[in-house]
Amino acid sequence: MSELIEYMQTLGKRAKAAARVIANADTGVKNNALTAIANEIEAQQIAILDANALDMAAGAKNGLDDALLDRLELNAERVAGMAEGLRQIVALPDPAGEISQINSRPSGIKVGQMRVPLGVIGIIYESRPNVTADAAALCLKSGNASILRGGSEAKHSNLAIAACISKGLQEAGLPSDVVQVIETTDRNAVGELIRMEGTVDVIIPRGGKGLIERITKEARVPVIKHLHGVCHVYLDDKADKEMAISIALNAKTQRYGTCNTMETLLVSEGVAAEFLPELEALYQAENVELRGCVKTCEILPSCVKAVDADWDEEYLAPILSIRVVADMDAAMDHIHRHSSGHTEAIVTDDYSKAMRFLREVDSSSVMVNASTRFADGFEYGLGGEIGISTNKLHARGPVGLVGLTTQKYIVLGEGHIRQ
Amino acid sequence: MSELIEYMQTLGKRAKAAARVIANADTGVKNNALTAIANEIEAQQIAILDANALDMAAGAKNGLDDALLDRLELNAERVAGMAEGLRQIVALPDPAGEISQINSRPSGIKVGQMRVPLGVIGIIYESRPNVTADAAALCLKSGNASILRGGSEAKHSNLAIAACISKGLQEAGLPSDVVQVIETTDRNAVGELIRMEGTVDVIIPRGGKGLIERITKEARVPVIKHLHGVCHVYLDDKADKEMAISIALNAKTQRYGTCNTMETLLVSEGVAAEFLPELEALYQAENVELRGCVKTCEILPSCVKAVDADWDEEYLAPILSIRVVADMDAAMDHIHRHSSGHTEAIVTDDYSKAMRFLREVDSSSVMVNASTRFADGFEYGLGGEIGISTNKLHARGPVGLVGLTTQKYIVLGEGHIRQ
Repeated sequence: MSELIEYMQTLGKRAKAAARVIANADTGVKNNALTAIANEIEAQQIAILDANALDMAAGAKNGLDDALLDRLELNAERVAGMAEGLRQIVALPDPAGEISQINSRPSGIKVGQMRVPLGVIGIIYESRPNVTADAAALCLKSGNASILRGGSEAKHSNLAIAACISKGLQEAGLPSDVVQVIETTDRNAVGELIRMEGTVDVIIPRGGKGLIERITKEARVPVIKHLHGVCHVYLDDKADKEMAISIALNAKTQRYGTCNTMETLLVSEGVAAEFLPELEALYQAENVELRGCVKTCEILPSCVKAVDADWDEEYLAPILSIRVVADMDAAMDHIHRHSSGHTEAIVTDDYSKAMRFLREVDSSSVMVNASTRFADGFEYGLGGEIGISTNKLHARGPVGLVGLTTQKYIVLGEGHIRQ
Repeated sequence: MSELIEYMQTLGKRAKAAARVIANADTGVKNNALTAIANEIEAQQIAILDANALDMAAGAKNGLDDALLDRLELNAERVAGMAEGLRQIVALPDPAGEISQINSRPSGIKVGQMRVPLGVIGIIYESRPNVTADAAALCLKSGNASILRGGSEAKHSNLAIAACISKGLQEAGLPSDVVQVIETTDRNAVGELIRMEGTVDVIIPRGGKGLIERITKEARVPVIKHLHGVCHVYLDDKADKEMAISIALNAKTQRYGTCNTMETLLVSEGVAAEFLPELEALYQAENVELRGCVKTCEILPSCVKAVDADWDEEYLAPILSIRVVADMDAAMDHIHRHSSGHTEAIVTDDYSKAMRFLREVDSSSVMVNASTRFADGFEYGLGGEIGISTNKLHARGPVGLVGLTTQKYIVLGEGHIRQ
């Protein structure tokens, strides 16, 4: 154990030293590094796939399920995708160094804010080895040093990718400590990492709810967390029927396993009898299981009755709970009680209701007449995304490069002293 | 203990319900409440002073020291100051509801961000009863519900002020639960408050380093913390001598007990022999004790030799440590090692060095040619300040109304679905 602590502290010291270097590196240098890493990943495709084959073999032997094995697997296309992802990050504007409006104060000083990197970012993730390249690149571009801890099942893949990152950094004249991968598979390494206050500035866990809850509970370092997405769509009685049905269908069925997928549909009493039968047919065509409240089941006799737990469930599957509500206020009350604060949408043509819903619903994304599936960093134009934060403080919603920075005050004086 | 938990949970539930109301209250209503509270405080001056007299008597009996008694004491002028502070907050712009630039995305959706209150804010503070009015008002104006926990020594004063707040809220048609004061003096109430995840959105402790360290360590709710201020001024060899001396003197002697007071002066080797003797005479005239590095003591033979601990000390007193450094890089290295990340200043006429210092020094305020004493919310134009954050995430530096809010994404569609 003390050996582990020593190992982690060395890693931390190196990260902190590298953080000062990368924080002050010019955008061009950072872009050169990203390009060099992308080139190296392409050049090392075979080595990366060989390493991945070792992980896949071990995974199969250890009985990983198909979904996990799919996430773990790399192929030529996925490796090319990693390199392409890095080049996209090259093209993004560098948030670091941006100075917001500088104001003159009565004292004569000029005060503004400068955007600066956070420092050292710890990323803890599971299975997908492409996160190694992706997370490292977003941290690097925003001027942060990173310490990455991938799943032990992806050990060989992650180390092969890490070698490319290290080489790319060096080619650009940057210390390879800017991106460090924890090499030990000792589970206690995570416990150490999340307690390294004063060294690690923020922890970003990417993985299932269990991982994130555990980390949040034990961490001493601030965590940008993405707990889960119990997302709602509310179909108002002033909704256009065609639009309502199209959005309700898309929000559930466009993809099932994503956090911005609708899990509960709320339908205004005034339109429930009109909208629900048509929706039921469309969902049935997609094999979506429906679980309804009493009123829903009255309208849709073949619908399964929902139990209390359904309203808080993130199914991540072709299952949808449906509740008929009296009006928008009742819908917002339901959301207030059951939402995970991720994304909610209203479908309505009523201007006042749209404005009230936008203002009053307290989630990281609130939408009018759009599918919840739009809630992600690419769709929002962030260019990339290290996760979607369900925190209220600091970064809320999709977290891109800006979410990996902070602002400090700068004061420009000409010899000013306080009276 | 279970009675306390029940009490705190009731408080929390009420705060959460009130948070929804105040979050959606119009600016005018919030301003009416603030004005009504100010009027009520003025009207109840005698009752407040009577309550304060009880606290002062108990404080004297319990042997509180003079500094604490001074902070605890209210008089007509201080009560008037509280009311005046509330009226100043009325005049500030309301940050809630602000929508930042809405962009059209290729999919056709329009994406922007809306500034919204955090929700429920817990404030934990010591002795000064005026914080009750001040903190409540900042939370109210920014649309947050608050739970206030003052020091037990100010119990009667705080309750008298809380009664005025409650009355003012009701006069404006707002629930009095928008601002709740913890009435029990049971110390475990703080322990409960800082663990009420899902109810309390952020904790802001205002007090000594001990209080803040303890709260940070035990809290499960995010903490906007203000640890301490080990602030530095670096006098560069390209500094104008008169300006350098004026700023170095002001940053230390304008006030000793404040967190933005300089605690360590760094002087470039090139100008140390020229600047230090003059500075020594000025500091001696103000009875400031100097503690120097070896080189400082060579230049100032009567200077006390600093020990290692001096470089990390927040004296909050007429004591100053002085170190002669080779150049700006050495100064920044010293700051990197010893600063608490609060405020640092450089005095220089060298453009490149000024730019580098601004960029590379990682503190909440970084200044060129200005006294560190400017680092506060009023001087920066925030209009008020609930504290100065030494956190990196969320709010950094002086925290005004904007720091008590967050941003959510809003998406405006016209029936858009994800392809």
